[in-house]
Amino acid sequence: MRYELFYWPTIQGRGEYVRLALEDAGADYVDVARRKGGERRMMAMMANRRLGPPPFAPPFLKANKLVIAQVANILFYLGPRLGLAPKSEAGRLRLHQLQLTIADFVVEIHDTHHPLGPTFYYEDQRPQAKRRTEEFWKARVPKFLGYFETLAARGNGPYLDGRRANYVDLSLFQIVEGLRYAFPKRMARFERKIPRIVALHARVASRPNIAAYAQSGRRIPFNTDGVFRHYAALDE
Amino acid sequence: MRYELFYWPTIQGRGEYVRLALEDAGADYVDVARRKGGERRMMAMMANRRLGPPPFAPPFLKANKLVIAQVANILFYLGPRLGLAPKSEAGRLRLHQLQLTIADFVVEIHDTHHPLGPTFYYEDQRPQAKRRTEEFWKARVPKFLGYFETLAARGNGPYLDGRRANYVDLSLFQIVEGLRYAFPKRMARFERKIPRIVALHARVASRPNIAAYAQSGRRIPFNTDGVFRHYAALDE
Repeated sequence: MRYELFYWPTIQGRGEYVRLALEDAGADYVDVARRKGGERRMMAMMANRRLGPPPFAPPFLKANKLVIAQVANILFYLGPRLGLAPKSEAGRLRLHQLQLTIADFVVEIHDTHHPLGPTFYYEDQRPQAKRRTEEFWKARVPKFLGYFETLAARGNGPYLDGRRANYVDLSLFQIVEGLRYAFPKRMARFERKIPRIVALHARVASRPNIAAYAQSGRRIPFNTDGVFRHYAALDE
Repeated sequence: MRYELFYWPTIQGRGEYVRLALEDAGADYVDVARRKGGERRMMAMMANRRLGPPPFAPPFLKANKLVIAQVANILFYLGPRLGLAPKSEAGRLRLHQLQLTIADFVVEIHDTHHPLGPTFYYEDQRPQAKRRTEEFWKARVPKFLGYFETLAARGNGPYLDGRRANYVDLSLFQIVEGLRYAFPKRMARFERKIPRIVALHARVASRPNIAAYAQSGRRIPFNTDGVFRHYAALDE
């Protein structure tokens, strides 16, 4: 089956967690909105009242007749089909729980540059962003990444859940990539506290399909329109 | 089976979405942390490295040997077992997608009083909370509740997904309850724009087990420690 992924064509954003899973698995997929007329088709699907239900926002995935929105929901569906999650109910719920924790972290990452909400520009909330970012690095990054470091420490590795990579490993790779881009100085200092997550990142980066994806031109570079944004003032 | 729910004992918070499902279904459950020694047991489970994985935060549910965290994940598990979700994969993914959209909304509701992050007190971020709340009511409430109003409009009712209530209906009930408590003036003005969601709220409120729960003393009153908080300054 050819999967169709619908997401904004110029950012990694939340769609990237799905792209990484599809790429790592070598799945047959189309990144619809990056093709001619694709963004229009994406908007039309969101307005299509006959879809049950239409997505609230991108990303969403079309798999035959199913249209699935919400990153963690898409990965829950794709995981066992792509060989990136166990097939048992308990195993699937366990991974999903971790992915939802990552999703919570992603919201807080986004809020560092948008503490007053998504409808103002960053430029309209610089002092508040600075204050929120300080707190984010002081309390929230240690809490979230410390949690995953603990999970990695009690596993037998090399991946979070053992010998096989799953979609949570890929998402943690993206978190490290994004924090390095957005906050190079802060992240460089912090990484010594999470050696196992840093090693996990390297391991994912060297997976053949991920390495090929990074060099393919298909991976959109980070930029200041996505979730991870580099503003020098927030990295001091 | 007797379910064990673990959540903070003095607030509705995120645990309430699970409590409502258990109560509506008349499920056999214990709200562990509200019993003597229960909060200590909750904290011990979160620190238990042998759990696979230990929860990042409450709420979590113990069902025999399974320990499941994240509200939407818990409801995904409980839904079909409590008769509050269809059994088909497509039906379960569809409801889960809606629940995850509600979860995103809940984060934004919380951010109205905590725009600078969860580690500062509201009292330390009043002006920012005011500004975020304005934008929340101007742009975000219409977007989220407008979406669910549209879904209700295209259904055949009386519930969002047809004749039978599901856990998303219960969660929307809680959203309306919470917004009425936190922002009584603003919500009173806004409700004329979402007549179907208001009607859905009334329908859920009159379900026998929900009505009994509301009067039982088991439902913790809203207060200014939870997600929904009433601060008069934010309701003007």
